[in-house]
This record gives sequence, structure tokens and C-alpha cells, in this order.
Amino acid sequence: MTMTRKRRSQVLPFSRVSIIGLGLIGSSVARAVRQQMPTVRLTGHDADADVRVRADALGIVDDVTDTLGAAVTDAELVILCVPVGAMGAVAAEMAADLPIEAVVSDVGSCKAEVIRALTAALPGATIVPAHPVAGTEQSGPEAGFASLFNRRWCIVTPLPDGDPVATERVAEFWRRLGSMVEIMAPDHHDRVLAVTSHLPHLIAYTIVGTANDLAEVTQSEVIKFSAGGFRDFTRIAASDPTMWRDVFLANKEAVLEMLQRFSEDLSHLQRAIRWDDGDTLHDLFSRTRTIRRSIVDQGQDDAAADFGRKHD
Amino acid sequence: MTMTRKRRSQVLPFSRVSIIGLGLIGSSVARAVRQQMPTVRLTGHDADADVRVRADALGIVDDVTDTLGAAVTDAELVILCVPVGAMGAVAAEMAADLPIEAVVSDVGSCKAEVIRALTAALPGATIVPAHPVAGTEQSGPEAGFASLFNRRWCIVTPLPDGDPVATERVAEFWRRLGSMVEIMAPDHHDRVLAVTSHLPHLIAYTIVGTANDLAEVTQSEVIKFSAGGFRDFTRIAASDPTMWRDVFLANKEAVLEMLQRFSEDLSHLQRAIRWDDGDTLHDLFSRTRTIRRSIVDQGQDDAAADFGRKHD
Repeated sequence: MTMTRKRRSQVLPFSRVSIIGLGLIGSSVARAVRQQMPTVRLTGHDADADVRVRADALGIVDDVTDTLGAAVTDAELVILCVPVGAMGAVAAEMAADLPIEAVVSDVGSCKAEVIRALTAALPGATIVPAHPVAGTEQSGPEAGFASLFNRRWCIVTPLPDGDPVATERVAEFWRRLGSMVEIMAPDHHDRVLAVTSHLPHLIAYTIVGTANDLAEVTQSEVIKFSAGGFRDFTRIAASDPTMWRDVFLANKEAVLEMLQRFSEDLSHLQRAIRWDDGDTLHDLFSRTRTIRRSIVDQGQDDAAADFGRKHD
Repeated sequence: MTMTRKRRSQVLPFSRVSIIGLGLIGSSVARAVRQQMPTVRLTGHDADADVRVRADALGIVDDVTDTLGAAVTDAELVILCVPVGAMGAVAAEMAADLPIEAVVSDVGSCKAEVIRALTAALPGATIVPAHPVAGTEQSGPEAGFASLFNRRWCIVTPLPDGDPVATERVAEFWRRLGSMVEIMAPDHHDRVLAVTSHLPHLIAYTIVGTANDLAEVTQSEVIKFSAGGFRDFTRIAASDPTMWRDVFLANKEAVLEMLQRFSEDLSHLQRAIRWDDGDTLHDLFSRTRTIRRSIVDQGQDDAAADFGRKHD
């Protein structure tokens, strides 16, 4: 569609973008912008001087600034790619240098708490919270890549009195990076992600810890025989510790509620095993297969067996 | 090493192998034998007539027999690749046709209960239980492939009075298929696998069921936003329902004990979240990263981020 392509290139949503936090997500946003919107002027900053040096060497943004203020002073869009618990402090620190017409967005995994922190720190600013549902277990500027958001959902959670034009610009920004955009209320976002992301991470962290603590099964045995299922859990249990600590504390209520439901369901299965109730087990195990098929059908996971792992 | 290769080819551990059960594992054993020991005469049987027809059409064994007796009557090695709960009945049914010198092995995921069933059904037979720690979430003869066992561990759990020569022949058989062999006591095997395989499967089945049952988060939302972590659990929750029902019932005690420990650890984290104890969370999340690294270092999982999933 030439028409569409032409119109798209005319309405570049932002021409000067600042990325605060140059880890896995921030550096992937930078790379994706460079690839998909090459004329955008990219500025980056990270609180960690070592990360700044590495990001600069990687050349993923046009300028890496030494101060937060210098990174935002000329921005049309500022994206906060820092742990959820750091959003408020970072926003407060940049408030004085933020241009009045700039749009502030973020990539945080919980939205109600981030909105509370950002609106408190940036009264009067145009805030459009967003959450790209994508990532890997790796961290740091070297771990990012341009296609991370491609064909993944990005959930935009506008404020009740949010600017619809700014919302559409942020949505279009993510579409340009390859994402599919969903608009959602912040509270609903937090409940959906508690199930599809936060609870899975919490459980993966738990079971990997449980296995590590067993006295009678050595750690080397756990590692050797991990191909029986355990290794699938270790991937997400290798995710960034600070990011995830913040997520659980920031989305506490929804996580605790989902955890309660999970524990009830687990007790139900525990009882079925204890009382040799094979039918209850078989019924559940048959239902869960269907969900996997839907995820593969909708392109949210690899269709190949075993995640398409190499079997050479 | 020409010497080694030559000597190996002289001591083919078995020249006539019968595979009972032609699903994912049985058909993979057949394919791997065909590839690694092409002179072996392969016979196969499955209780399901439809599976027999499909296996025959795939040509994965030399002969698919209509009866179990015909499949074992000429065998040097009989490998039972059926669900753990079916082992006893299958062994009893083939007892009358089993040659006295044949070695009987299996691929079951729990060993103490399988040993109990096989020794009861086949008094006097030479039994060498084994468990290749490998698999995918798919089922059926079409899902198998020759490299499934390559660089994976196969745990051999000889009986206390087991024949050491037969044990070594079965171990060599698995080495020929590409596996690394570990000898282990059956009870210890069942405890190790309860942690590295059975508990992960039980938890994955539970959380996928929990997500499916939520009223306020639609199933389409669970599927859409599964890339946040949930999808990793759905892979193993798509595993064969009959096989896994049998595993939990057969390894009941070890599974219930590990489940108890897991539940305690989960309650500990739940409490940390409720009381904003970020340090407890961060400490655990840092420890679990190390385990992932070891699994990758030891070649038991893909080193690429995100399981090496395609990000195109």
C-alpha cells in the first residue's frame, strides 16, 4: 500500500526521542527506532556511568548524556525504561528540564503505581503510560535487539483525563516499532499482567529456589536433569532481580490475589494426587493443552516443538 | 578415534529390538536406532490400531505387529514406551511370549513403581529400568525424531540384584543413541525427578488452569499477553495428559513432599510481598540467575536469549 506508507512517513510521531535507562528494553527501543525511524534524533541516559560508556560504544543512540537533565531538555518524547520502583525519583529529577510540550511515557510492567508516581512527580506534564509485553531473561545494553517488539503487544494505558492526541502519537510510535497496540485501563492492565506475567515469574523464582535448597538432591543433579521440565522455569527465573522486586511490590494487591487463587488450585491437585483421583488430573491436563495451541496459533510463541530448541 | 569406533561397532549391544508403544518417545527411539545402529532389526507394537497404521506408514520400524506377543517373541531387548500406569498390564500380557534371554527395559519417568509392576508381572525376567530425560510437549509417532536423546541424560536404575552385563548393554544402547548415562538408585531417581520434572509439570498445569478459570480476565487476554512469561509454562502444560496423570499417581510420595516444600517457599515470598520486604525478593531473584547459567553452561538448554525463539 503505497498510500499508507507515504502517509505514515509524513506523520512521524516524534522526531526527537530520549530514552532514560539503557538496559535490555531501553537499548532495544533505541535499536528499533534507529531501524524503523532512522531520521529520529535519539538521546539516551543511564544512571549507571558504566552503562553509559557501554551504550555509547555500541552507538545505539546519537548522544549519551552525562546528566538526566541534558537528556530530556530537547525531547519531544521521553521514555522511562527504568525499574518500576525508580520511576518516581527519575521523573522528579528531570522535572525542571522537561520541555512543557514533551510527552512522557514509560515501559513499566505495572501501571497504576507508575501513574501515581509519575503524576505526583510531574504535575501538568503530558503522560502516556505504556507497557510493551516483550523481553528476554537477559539484561544490559548489549542484550537489546531491534526486533524485540515485533509482533508483540504494547499496552497503552491512558490517564482518565489524558490527551487523546498524545495517546495516539505514542500508540503510533509503538506500531512503528512493529508492535500491536491495545488500549486498556491501568487497573485492568495490572490484573491481566498479574496472571500472564507476574505470577509466572514469582512461581518460577520460587521453584528454582526450592530446587536449589534441597539437601538430598544435589545442585549438580538439578542442573543435569533439568531437561525434564525444570529448565523451562529457569529462563524467566533468570530475569532482572531489581526489575522484578519492584514489580511485585508495585502490583502487590493483584499479585497476592492471583497467588491465592493459584494456591487453591494447587491444593486441589495435591488432594487429587493424594487420593488417587486420576480423572481430575487428566481433565485439567487435557484442558491446558488447548491454551498452548491458541498461543501458538496467535503467533505469541514458536510453533516448533520444545520452543524450537536445537536438537542436533 | 578409529580404535574406539571400530570396537564399538563390534559390540552392538542388541541386534533385535522391540519397541512397545510408538508415541513420541517410542518412535524417537526407533528413529534413533535406525540412524545410529542401522543393522538392528526393529519391531514395534502399539495398543492403538490407528497408531500402528501410522507408524507403519512412517516406516520407523521394520515390522509393526498386530499383537504384543508377536512383537516380543524374537526380541533381545524389549523397551516399554507406554505410560507408567500401563507398564504392569503390558508386561503381564507379553510375559508368555517373552524369550528367556531377552532384556526388558522401559522409559518411564518414575522408577520405583515401575520396578514393582514389572517384577511382579515378569518373575525371573532380566529387567533393566531406564529413563531418558528428554521429550517435547508433542505426542504420537509423527512427533518423534532421531536426535531427541542426543546430549541428554539417560538414567539407568538397576535392580539391587540386577545383572551387571545386562545393565551395561542397556547403558551402551543409550550411549549409541547419543545419551550420557547415569546409574542411580530407583528411589533417588524418583526424588530427583520429582524436583526437576514432576513438580515443574504440576505447577505449570496448575497455573495454566488458574489463568483459564479467571472470570475477569478473558481467555483471549491471557493468550494475547502471554509473552510476559505465561507462555513458557504453557509448553510443558501441553504435555501428554495420560502420561502425566500416571506419573503423579506413581510417584505420589516424592511429588507431595516436594510440593510441600514449594508451598512453604511460596508462602515465604507471599509474606515478603505483603510486608514490602524487597531484600528477601531481591536475594532470591539473584540466586536463581546462577542456576540458569549453569544449565546453559552444561548444554542442557539453549544459550540464546528467550530459548532462541525467532524474533523476526
